[in-house]
Amino acid sequence: MHLQLDGRGPLHAQLTRALKGAMFAGRVGHGARLPPTRLLARDLGVSRNTVLAAYEQLRAEGFLDGRVGSGSYVTPPLQAMRQVNAQPTWIEPQSAYARRLRTIHDHEKVPGARSPMVRYAFQYGAPLTNPALSTAWARELSHAAAYARPGYPMTQGVPALREAVCDYLARRRGIQTKPADVLIVNGTQQALSLTSRILFDEGAEVAIEEPQYFAAREVLQSNGAQLCPIPVDDNGLVTDALPARTPKLICVTPSHQFPSGAVMSLSRRLSLLDYAERRGSWIFEDDYDGEFRYGSKPIAALRSLDEHDRVIYVGSFSKALFPALRMGYLIMPAPLRSDFIAAKWMEDFGSAAIEQAALANFIQDGGFERHLRRSAKTLEERRCALLEGLRACSKGRLAIADSRAGMHIVVWLTGRSRAEGEALIAHAVGHGLGLHPIAPYYLAPPDRAGLLMGFASLSVLEIEEAVQVFARCLDEMFPVSAKPRLQRRARAPAMPAAARGSRG
Amino acid sequence: MHLQLDGRGPLHAQLTRALKGAMFAGRVGHGARLPPTRLLARDLGVSRNTVLAAYEQLRAEGFLDGRVGSGSYVTPPLQAMRQVNAQPTWIEPQSAYARRLRTIHDHEKVPGARSPMVRYAFQYGAPLTNPALSTAWARELSHAAAYARPGYPMTQGVPALREAVCDYLARRRGIQTKPADVLIVNGTQQALSLTSRILFDEGAEVAIEEPQYFAAREVLQSNGAQLCPIPVDDNGLVTDALPARTPKLICVTPSHQFPSGAVMSLSRRLSLLDYAERRGSWIFEDDYDGEFRYGSKPIAALRSLDEHDRVIYVGSFSKALFPALRMGYLIMPAPLRSDFIAAKWMEDFGSAAIEQAALANFIQDGGFERHLRRSAKTLEERRCALLEGLRACSKGRLAIADSRAGMHIVVWLTGRSRAEGEALIAHAVGHGLGLHPIAPYYLAPPDRAGLLMGFASLSVLEIEEAVQVFARCLDEMFPVSAKPRLQRRARAPAMPAAARGSRG
Repeated sequence: MHLQLDGRGPLHAQLTRALKGAMFAGRVGHGARLPPTRLLARDLGVSRNTVLAAYEQLRAEGFLDGRVGSGSYVTPPLQAMRQVNAQPTWIEPQSAYARRLRTIHDHEKVPGARSPMVRYAFQYGAPLTNPALSTAWARELSHAAAYARPGYPMTQGVPALREAVCDYLARRRGIQTKPADVLIVNGTQQALSLTSRILFDEGAEVAIEEPQYFAAREVLQSNGAQLCPIPVDDNGLVTDALPARTPKLICVTPSHQFPSGAVMSLSRRLSLLDYAERRGSWIFEDDYDGEFRYGSKPIAALRSLDEHDRVIYVGSFSKALFPALRMGYLIMPAPLRSDFIAAKWMEDFGSAAIEQAALANFIQDGGFERHLRRSAKTLEERRCALLEGLRACSKGRLAIADSRAGMHIVVWLTGRSRAEGEALIAHAVGHGLGLHPIAPYYLAPPDRAGLLMGFASLSVLEIEEAVQVFARCLDEMFPVSAKPRLQRRARAPAMPAAARGSRG
Repeated sequence: MHLQLDGRGPLHAQLTRALKGAMFAGRVGHGARLPPTRLLARDLGVSRNTVLAAYEQLRAEGFLDGRVGSGSYVTPPLQAMRQVNAQPTWIEPQSAYARRLRTIHDHEKVPGARSPMVRYAFQYGAPLTNPALSTAWARELSHAAAYARPGYPMTQGVPALREAVCDYLARRRGIQTKPADVLIVNGTQQALSLTSRILFDEGAEVAIEEPQYFAAREVLQSNGAQLCPIPVDDNGLVTDALPARTPKLICVTPSHQFPSGAVMSLSRRLSLLDYAERRGSWIFEDDYDGEFRYGSKPIAALRSLDEHDRVIYVGSFSKALFPALRMGYLIMPAPLRSDFIAAKWMEDFGSAAIEQAALANFIQDGGFERHLRRSAKTLEERRCALLEGLRACSKGRLAIADSRAGMHIVVWLTGRSRAEGEALIAHAVGHGLGLHPIAPYYLAPPDRAGLLMGFASLSVLEIEEAVQVFARCLDEMFPVSAKPRLQRRARAPAMPAAARGSRG
């Protein structure tokens, strides 16, 4: 009997695998008697105990009949046992949800991914890397691992973290809330997934900003929402354009509209709240980067003006700390509280406890806000370097949106079409520079060249170098002397604020 | 102007809050002019800079008009701005999913929760506490925090962890798989939630074991499944009882049926695979505690016999390590691979990266399996102490299921009704002992008294003491001389294997 051991793990396990392999391959048929243990041990040059252990294991798993001493027989019906055959890798979607997933989402084409061929990428969502934070976070985690409770966590979140979030929101965002209304979630994405499931059925109308965060759009679509895009201008969502047919849910980024950068004005905030209250719509307030403002203090959240408990407020630690953490929080309107907690329980019972305990301590001992202050300073330097560089190379070709907040800016190429923008991006890759189009952030992208430029993950020096490359690409593709094919269009209401920011 | 500062955080923030409070309360109407900064500073005994900062903040948030020097006026329309009013806390469910959640799930009544009034609880799911593990895990986390990538993690999971899982599964569970087929999830609960969404629509037939894990049942029901309970006997799921109408999904715990403890026989495994292949059903194999067997080696998983790629295999670190970790893995059949990854992306983009990196290292450097060996030894001592104690006090009153695996045993009170079991449980709480009924683990609970006794979280000494209390309660409620009201019934096919295990 020929058996090839694979050399991985203990000998008896190798032998067990080899014997199973022989059975699967049909080299040992059912009913066959395996060699006596002494004989096989001698043949293979292993101890008899090794063979005994392998036979015992096969017996425990039901592959062998008989007892040691009386012979070991392969159990029928082994003809059914083989390793997984190569199967067709395409089948019909098995549910309506899976069908929508396939229509909406192409995992290979998630926007903002960095090409491996570039040296610098103005990537949005890439974090500010920070050795001081890594060290502080390692200490917090190691500390929390010793005292966090190892059992199933509270579904709603660790109480200390919910308290810390309330204190933080009162101090920094003007939101008065209590730990009982906070739900700890695995980031904004999960917040919107839970919200979608408990707030609407397939076919429901949901209003979103145009342009918008593509991931939010896809979550809503995957849950069967009929999206109603609402234009955005310098004052944020154009509330006059809210639909006559009442949407079940309205998703907004009032503190810093993503991606245009507009800040929703107070009067728009009030009229949005008024609309939601009169019509019975819910509002999903995504406050993804409200922590970072330059030259202006943080703007109070929509939730802090909400007297009728229609606003689901969501904050995330992906921008404030780092995305790999997968942690955020949601303020639940009182009437939806038990639905949210049940939905979170159904999804994963609750978020991981050690990270929650570590985060609670990091916020309460002041480390978190120290980190925010340091980060804001670094981010402002990077933003200034980028703005300065872009203004210098613009020569009338760029319209730069500067919203004095966040980790990205939007740059429009004056009078250039979307295709011309794509050509510039392709050209830049050839020069080792990663640029990202704004088109994926629209339901109906305009025929204009726009870039979403994230600046968080590049140092000032890197930004300066990257802008040099950008300037060269711009000169090669669109020399200052060349007239754009497209005329500058009149301002349309759907035109994003980004297009009208300060110009370089 | 009377303003009460709340003493929390910097003075200017306190003042900003106090001024907003006055506006919300209507004490400062719209159009009103706020006191000049010097005057207010003097009145409050704060510096003028503090007042200037507060006014600036209110201006940035849109609450004030005008410029410093020319007077600050409260912006209309402030009548709309008040803090959240108390709202009715009950409303109609907003979606079909929310409606099902409310029907199925009562968060206050999740079975297995520990009463705060008891000293010892035979709680299932409470982990084996282990200082050595806490120390090792703190070290792994702290180490991983330094090298794990801070950006958005790969949706499918950190490659090193997926590789470690493959190696582990090959060594310990006889499963040959590759990292591309592994999806890292936040525990078995998320695995089943994702599976439900991509595999069936509302109204679909789903087969489950009877009895079953209540959380799995509720996830399926919340997604609109029509449950088809299949009885379980000593050899696990009774495959002959699989329904004529093909279920879309069949959920099983073949290694150690939960909660009865039965191990599915090889012939049943093969006929289940055969049924699934012929009918086109999918199988969800929940291998929640396959790591812990006493006196028998782990049984090879259903997935290792699956030649037609119908089995979704799920493992969890909740039992092998601790539940607060919220981490598990799922082997994706090739044709469902992209649906699973898209569904995970929609839910939370991917699991937290530092924990994944720490776990990968813990598995690859051997720490995980060392921990498993230590734990298995400790668990076996605890199990033996419990069995011994129960056998000693049984005096013919208990039928003890000993499945030589896992972290719990099932004990039936011979001839006693479900109500009599509840009475014993209530009596035990009075004596500081937590007992848990088996009824919540049935769709249609039998009228018999059964207990699910978890032994992982109690030391041998605690178990010995707790069993003493149990014996006293038993004697007080059901003296040996008293004849049970119910007759011992004949074996029915739906009768769980647990009832027929070794008797004490």
